[in-house]
Amino acid sequence: MQQQRDNIVFVGNKPVMNYVLAVVTQFNNGADEVAIKARGKAISRAVDTAEIALSRFLNGVTKKTISTGTEVIETEDGKTNVSSIEIVLAAPR
Amino acid sequence: MQQQRDNIVFVGNKPVMNYVLAVVTQFNNGADEVAIKARGKAISRAVDTAEIALSRFLNGVTKKTISTGTEVIETEDGKTNVSSIEIVLAAPR
Repeated sequence: MQQQRDNIVFVGNKPVMNYVLAVVTQFNNGADEVAIKARGKAISRAVDTAEIALSRFLNGVTKKTISTGTEVIETEDGKTNVSSIEIVLAAPR
Repeated sequence: MQQQRDNIVFVGNKPVMNYVLAVVTQFNNGADEVAIKARGKAISRAVDTAEIALSRFLNGVTKKTISTGTEVIETEDGKTNVSSIEIVLAAPR
């Protein structure tokens, strides 16, 4: 039914509840897992998104994995490194 | 020799290299593990700290665990929730 690998929420600079709603909606539509991703300063908001979604809205859903990394970004001044995070939430079976 | 559970670096609002230096120093002093902790907006900087320390300074050190949580903070206006992160780095055995 649902597409397994398309359940990704990219967190940016909008209010955190926008992203919480996106995560909750994907689980309500039958997703088994949702990956919350962010880079740079939005990383804090990605953690907020996961914490708020789990504590207020998603009964039984758990944090499956949390990973961090470094991505290389092309800017006008050349290449620069930016940190990234991926938090995967999983529905109960 | 070193105190196992005191190897914690709390990341706040200073420049990221301050925290990178603190982490690297603890490993150079013989620490087996160093925990990088942060709350709120400093979470992004904690991830930067870990990524920079690992990629530029700490050969063989790995990310052992990454965990996130919610802490309750007392403010003048009452209690509020803030997200937290803990990234544990481990030296090779």
